[in-house]
Parts: sequence; C-alpha cells; structure tokens
Amino acid sequence: MQVKALLFDVFGTVVDWRSGVIRDVTAIARDKGADIDAGRFADQWRAGYRPAMDLVRDGELPWTKLDDLHRRTLERLVSDFGLTGLDETELAWLNECWHRLDPWPDSVAGLQRLRQRYIVAALSNGNVALLVDMAKRAGLPWDFIASAELFRCYKPDPRTYLGAAGLLGLAPAEVMLVAAHNDDLGVAADLGLATAFVSRPAELGPSRLENLAPARDYSCVAADFHELAGLLGA
Amino acid sequence: MQVKALLFDVFGTVVDWRSGVIRDVTAIARDKGADIDAGRFADQWRAGYRPAMDLVRDGELPWTKLDDLHRRTLERLVSDFGLTGLDETELAWLNECWHRLDPWPDSVAGLQRLRQRYIVAALSNGNVALLVDMAKRAGLPWDFIASAELFRCYKPDPRTYLGAAGLLGLAPAEVMLVAAHNDDLGVAADLGLATAFVSRPAELGPSRLENLAPARDYSCVAADFHELAGLLGA
Repeated sequence: MQVKALLFDVFGTVVDWRSGVIRDVTAIARDKGADIDAGRFADQWRAGYRPAMDLVRDGELPWTKLDDLHRRTLERLVSDFGLTGLDETELAWLNECWHRLDPWPDSVAGLQRLRQRYIVAALSNGNVALLVDMAKRAGLPWDFIASAELFRCYKPDPRTYLGAAGLLGLAPAEVMLVAAHNDDLGVAADLGLATAFVSRPAELGPSRLENLAPARDYSCVAADFHELAGLLGA
Repeated sequence: MQVKALLFDVFGTVVDWRSGVIRDVTAIARDKGADIDAGRFADQWRAGYRPAMDLVRDGELPWTKLDDLHRRTLERLVSDFGLTGLDETELAWLNECWHRLDPWPDSVAGLQRLRQRYIVAALSNGNVALLVDMAKRAGLPWDFIASAELFRCYKPDPRTYLGAAGLLGLAPAEVMLVAAHNDDLGVAADLGLATAFVSRPAELGPSRLENLAPARDYSCVAADFHELAGLLGA
C-alpha cells in the first residue's frame, strides 16, 4: 500500500455530533423553560442537512456554507418545536453548537498516532471556520483542513475527494478516506482512493442502526482509530 | 483590538528559506563534485519567484503552483551554474528543498504561545503540499493553512488576504497579518487588516539589508514571535 495521506470524514466519524447538539439544545431549552425532546431536535436538524445540500448541488441555492444551511434548518426547527424567544445572540450560539462537538474517546489519541506516519486531514462538508473552531476546542491535530468550502461543492461530489488529493500533491491511490459511512466510502472507492471503514455504532443514538458494518470490500475495517493505526503500521 | 486570527507570511517570516536552500544546494553540489556559490544560487532562485508569479498574475501562465514555478527557475539555474548531471529524482529532491526549510529559533514556541489565544494560520504563496510538508517537518502548529493555491492567485492579490479572512468567517479588522515584509503588510493594512511587523534581519543573508524597519505605522512591531505574543497578551 502506497497511502501517504488519510482524509477523515468528520461528523460522526471523528466527532459525536448527536450528543453535542443534544447538550446545547437541552441547555438553551432549560434557559427558556421549554420542554423539548432534544434528541429528536438533533435528529431533525441533521436530517435537514442532506436536502439543504441538495439545493446547492442542484443549483437552486448558490454556494452556501454549512453554517448557513444549519441556520436555515434551525429557524424552521425552533418554530416547529416551540423553542421561542431566542434572540439573535442565542440563535447564533445554538447554531454554532456544530463548532463545539466532542470527539469520540479514541479520536484525538488515534489521530496523534496516525499523524506520526501519515498526513492527516479533515475532508468534511463543514465550513472552514466550523472545522477550525472544532479542532481547536477538541484538540484535533489536523495537518490540513480540506473543507468542502474550498471546492464550493459538497461531498459526495467527486471534486471534493479529488480536490483534496490534488491539493496534497497526491494521486487518488495515495490517499485513504476514513469514514463511518458506506455512502461516502463507496464514492471514494469508485474514484480510486483507498478506504477505511471505522464503525461508530453510537452515532445515531440508541435506536438507529445504520452503517454498522462495511457494505463492500474496503482497504481497511477498524473498530476505532487505535485499531486503524495498528492496521496502518502507525 | 478585536483581532481573533493571526495570518502569517511564511517564507522569511516563519522559516529561514535562504539557509535551507543553501544547505540542500551545497549537499547536492558536493555529491556532483560541482563548485557552486550556494548563497548566490539561493538568492537567484528566490529572485526568480516574483517574475514567475507575475506571469501568472498577468495571465501569461495559467494558474501554476509554487512548486512548479520553483521548478521552472531551477531548470534554468542548474544550467547557469553548471550543476549538471542531476537525474529526475535529484531535481525533484532539490526542488522540494522549499518543503524542508527550518523555522527561525523563536517560531515554533511563539506560534504555540499565540495559538492559545488566537487562531494561527499560514497565509503563504507556497502551495498546500509544500506548506503541509514544511509544517510537519518543522512542527509549525497551524490551525489552518490558507495557501494562495486555495484562491488560485498570489499575494499581494487582495483575494488572498480577504479570502483567508472570509474562510475563517472574520471581517478584515478581526484578522492580523504577521510578516517581515513591508510590501505584504502595506497591502494588508490598506485592506483593513491589522498588521504586525516582525523583523527578520538575517533573512537575506549577511550582505542584504531590506525590511529591517517598519515602513509605516503598523498595529504592532516586534523583534520576534515571543515579543509579539507579549504584545498581544498571549
């Protein structure tokens, strides 16, 4: 194997988005005396992600960064859930909960280990400011942040995977996508990238069981970043 | 002051390009038994930088990353200096000496200190792969690498300074350019960025004295990154 750089999907693969969103929705709902199912709020916020990106992909919206797509969905949800009375500062704070997500327990140590041998880069639909804030808060030791914002298109657009490889001066086969999601990995594999499936069974909460197992034959399959580091000789 | 992020010029401000180029030119000339003034070679290589970028800026060349501009100049220089007999592997290795530059003695510790309080990002005409390799080798703790390659234009094009601020989600006044060069800082100041002049008197070698003093009234003037950290409360 000739892999020189590892590109990491971030939401769900490196950080636990659902717990982080629940934490901040719960906090602000408590402040406002609102009785809200924060888990359902988090799930619906995340569920708004793909249709919002599709609007950009289909040209119905011009390029719009993820913070702004999140904000569109949030404004609908606070109304749907009756989370009323938030001023602009509070709405902006809540929208930035995606900047404040915690890593999975093995993420930071695993990345530090992998980084000794490989270039480790984020390849995420998060915008640059979101990913920079998240990395500083969580201690994610990225060598490079390859945000979709750099390419002005969202994964799974091939320009994101190939664009990241190109910026690193590498051929697709010299780059490995690490992700917990079969759809992301499938596109990367079809483009000639190496692929590593890392299982994150808690991503969607207790009741949702998706992406528990690899759907096809990836270069690596690991239970966490420590096991991945072992498999990759790091 | 409302500065949230520091953008660092890299060549000359963070790393000592001249000593690094001299080191590798000397090594390969010794291998080849060539008697070469490596300091003059380094100076002429660097002198080729601005005219080469001008070709891109003026549209005479399409977008070309710095590694490839360096290579164009190198091919002329090996001929001019009679450094003959280099095979492709050796030429590629020599061209990548710009990836292997050492930081000034205060750079890494100063950046680590500044990073506790600010976002610290590279804003350099170096391409992404060059800056990533350099950061890994030298231990430069960038929160983000804002290469000219992301914007497909070179400093001092305003799109680089404003583009980096935009990716970080910040207004120009929330961003400070840190550089050892009056031309770079002058453009940034005119665009509304905060500015810090850091003196690097050894950048051009013993005989060349430029950029020793600030040419105008910058937000900060410091002798090195430690002093800058002190001035910025980091």
